[in-house]
Amino acid sequence: MTERFDAVDVIRRKRDGERLTPEQIDWVIDAYTRGAVAEEQMSALAMAVFIRGMEREEIARWTRAMIASGERYDFSSILGAGGKVATADKHSTGGVGDKITLPLAPLVAAYGVAVPQLSGRGLGHTGGTLDKLEAIPGWRADLDHDEVLEMLGGIGAVICAAGSGLAPADKKLYALRDVTATVDSMPLIASSIMSKKIAEGTDSLVLDVKVGSGAFMKDEDRARELARTMVELGEDAGVRTTALLTDMSVPLGLTVGNAIEVEESVEVLAGGGPDDVVELTLALAREMLRASGIDTDPAEALADGRAMDVYRRMIRAQGGDPDAALPVARESHEVTAPEDGVLTTLDALAVGTASWRLGAGRARREDRVQAGAGVRLHAKPGDRVRRGQPLMTLLTDDPGRFDRALEALQGGWSVAPGDSADVERRLILDRLSAE
Amino acid sequence: MTERFDAVDVIRRKRDGERLTPEQIDWVIDAYTRGAVAEEQMSALAMAVFIRGMEREEIARWTRAMIASGERYDFSSILGAGGKVATADKHSTGGVGDKITLPLAPLVAAYGVAVPQLSGRGLGHTGGTLDKLEAIPGWRADLDHDEVLEMLGGIGAVICAAGSGLAPADKKLYALRDVTATVDSMPLIASSIMSKKIAEGTDSLVLDVKVGSGAFMKDEDRARELARTMVELGEDAGVRTTALLTDMSVPLGLTVGNAIEVEESVEVLAGGGPDDVVELTLALAREMLRASGIDTDPAEALADGRAMDVYRRMIRAQGGDPDAALPVARESHEVTAPEDGVLTTLDALAVGTASWRLGAGRARREDRVQAGAGVRLHAKPGDRVRRGQPLMTLLTDDPGRFDRALEALQGGWSVAPGDSADVERRLILDRLSAE
Repeated sequence: MTERFDAVDVIRRKRDGERLTPEQIDWVIDAYTRGAVAEEQMSALAMAVFIRGMEREEIARWTRAMIASGERYDFSSILGAGGKVATADKHSTGGVGDKITLPLAPLVAAYGVAVPQLSGRGLGHTGGTLDKLEAIPGWRADLDHDEVLEMLGGIGAVICAAGSGLAPADKKLYALRDVTATVDSMPLIASSIMSKKIAEGTDSLVLDVKVGSGAFMKDEDRARELARTMVELGEDAGVRTTALLTDMSVPLGLTVGNAIEVEESVEVLAGGGPDDVVELTLALAREMLRASGIDTDPAEALADGRAMDVYRRMIRAQGGDPDAALPVARESHEVTAPEDGVLTTLDALAVGTASWRLGAGRARREDRVQAGAGVRLHAKPGDRVRRGQPLMTLLTDDPGRFDRALEALQGGWSVAPGDSADVERRLILDRLSAE
Repeated sequence: MTERFDAVDVIRRKRDGERLTPEQIDWVIDAYTRGAVAEEQMSALAMAVFIRGMEREEIARWTRAMIASGERYDFSSILGAGGKVATADKHSTGGVGDKITLPLAPLVAAYGVAVPQLSGRGLGHTGGTLDKLEAIPGWRADLDHDEVLEMLGGIGAVICAAGSGLAPADKKLYALRDVTATVDSMPLIASSIMSKKIAEGTDSLVLDVKVGSGAFMKDEDRARELARTMVELGEDAGVRTTALLTDMSVPLGLTVGNAIEVEESVEVLAGGGPDDVVELTLALAREMLRASGIDTDPAEALADGRAMDVYRRMIRAQGGDPDAALPVARESHEVTAPEDGVLTTLDALAVGTASWRLGAGRARREDRVQAGAGVRLHAKPGDRVRRGQPLMTLLTDDPGRFDRALEALQGGWSVAPGDSADVERRLILDRLSAE
């Protein structure tokens, strides 16, 4: 087969800081998916994109080309009592203690909006939603397309593994970026996330773009640029898209791990739970409901148990027992306050890395995670603490892991004398939308 | 086996414009040679090096690591009548009509200096020395290490294919750079050339760094930087190294191809030949002789036939018949002057590309070249021409190739009215040495 372009010409162009043409982008993504552009060629191109960047039109075309590499889902056949049901999706760029999907999906579904949450497993210091739910005895992540549709129609929400048919070019490229230091590139992150979300066929999408030590993006300006780019990509593709920029310098909630995050999510669904988890859940729910034309206060469905009902049906439909006891780590170790005072810092990256090293996360794709491992927090920045009081409890099945976890925590928290808690944390930093 | 470094960390460092440590460089080249660093990882690193550059110490270490990836030759056992014989080598960065190695190696050997010319085949618009010599019936390029030593000791000069044992990391990396648009990078070019030359074990080296349309380096400043870097690399490794910056905006001599370049080389060895070929041959010979402690005028050995004697013995020792008729192209086409005047321009890249398209060069490594193909020039810039007079003759076995060759020549030459030949060409632009 004669190729329309030469891979070397395309790479050279981006290498020299020029803009790729739409035709070159379509060709290179298609040829890469087919294997006509070799892994080492795409890797050189990804590095050139990393360093030279892409303009808005290039990113949009790149995203379209990745969508075109695979199948698209169609949720338009989902019918509720009142006819066609709106679908709303949420994507988080990943954080420490970020269990929001668990209470959020059933909460929004409680208002008659279908919520397809095609999720992934965690790699590195941020956990994966599927890893968390798999702590529930019997629950399974893999559903086929018909099962997804059935759950959306019958229950209204589904959290499951993304099928391999969506944007296969992205799947291939993501694995390549992972080993070639080209993950952390704004155009490549934006097109990767949005190609899957657009191919999935949702009506609306809310993006939770994290900023801070525990996030992909450490810097607010870069996070805002990523958010703006993704909102534009979504709107250009006909998906109503908004983004919240949220703080990830401190872990979300009081649990970081798998089973313990499920436990905290259930507390939120029962009307309780830590303030920050509740605040972010409600803020994202409001965005999803508004995008679906529903103007209401979602706090009601947390308070009256409707969200909990949906959650329990959702877990049960995927083989899980919502009443079963969750796995508990065999060993624990407490970190205590060295003096009376105020907890002034608690670094998200340090806690995330500790949890990962305790066994809650994986270093390689093939690793298994421990359901019970993680870090339970007993204080958050601004809280007064007394000497000897537990600040956090490290949990693992394997006590040999405590040392490395404690190493990760070194310098990651601090207690200062005094009793004035002048630590202020804004959770939601900004909101971006097409308007 | 536990690796000392993580390839992703090394790539990330260069990606972010930082300097690689000596240990990282040693590791990455060694691990790449062993296959522990994957092709796609090296390709991302090569692109990062291309865009971010390397500092002098990094290039030196990179070169050393490539040398360490393979064997080193040792010519110290070569003995002449007066004891240990000095070895002198020449490297050209490649040009159009550059057949200088053919007269140069025997000329320098005529003065008792051993000249090992481990050469390559051509790819693209510049020809390869081995392709040219293979036009001689019976001549073979592949010699083993003992044969090389025997030729150096017995005849004094050898032109043959470089063995695969020298700098295997470079061989692997060069093939990768070729398909990933990372060939034209100063640090990668310099380390590639010098790793092979240093591993080869020569006492001295003269570099012919070409500048102009027909060369790798179009720009004199960049060519000078490359030359300076290579001189430093050579001197740091104990090889007396000088570099001449020479013009490659116009083809060298009056022939561009394979058999026809051998023919012109023999003219030079017989005391004739085009002025520019003779001038450059003598200039490079002077550098090689001076580096070997010999202060003489090499023109003598061209005039008295000593260089020719060495050439004939050299060709014969490798199975070639210096008296055999050379292959002649089956078809020819003449380009004539459209009016009376002066030939004002004759672009090296245009002529090189035409010769390549006529069959003298190859587009892919596995292609075969035509021995008789090429371009014979009948005028050089500054020469007066008359309307209808042949300016060049295109040669090929395959007349279907004339059209594309003529296309390459379009705009590549011009005749202007008048008879003042105010076209001045400086062949040798500069000389760089460690002093």
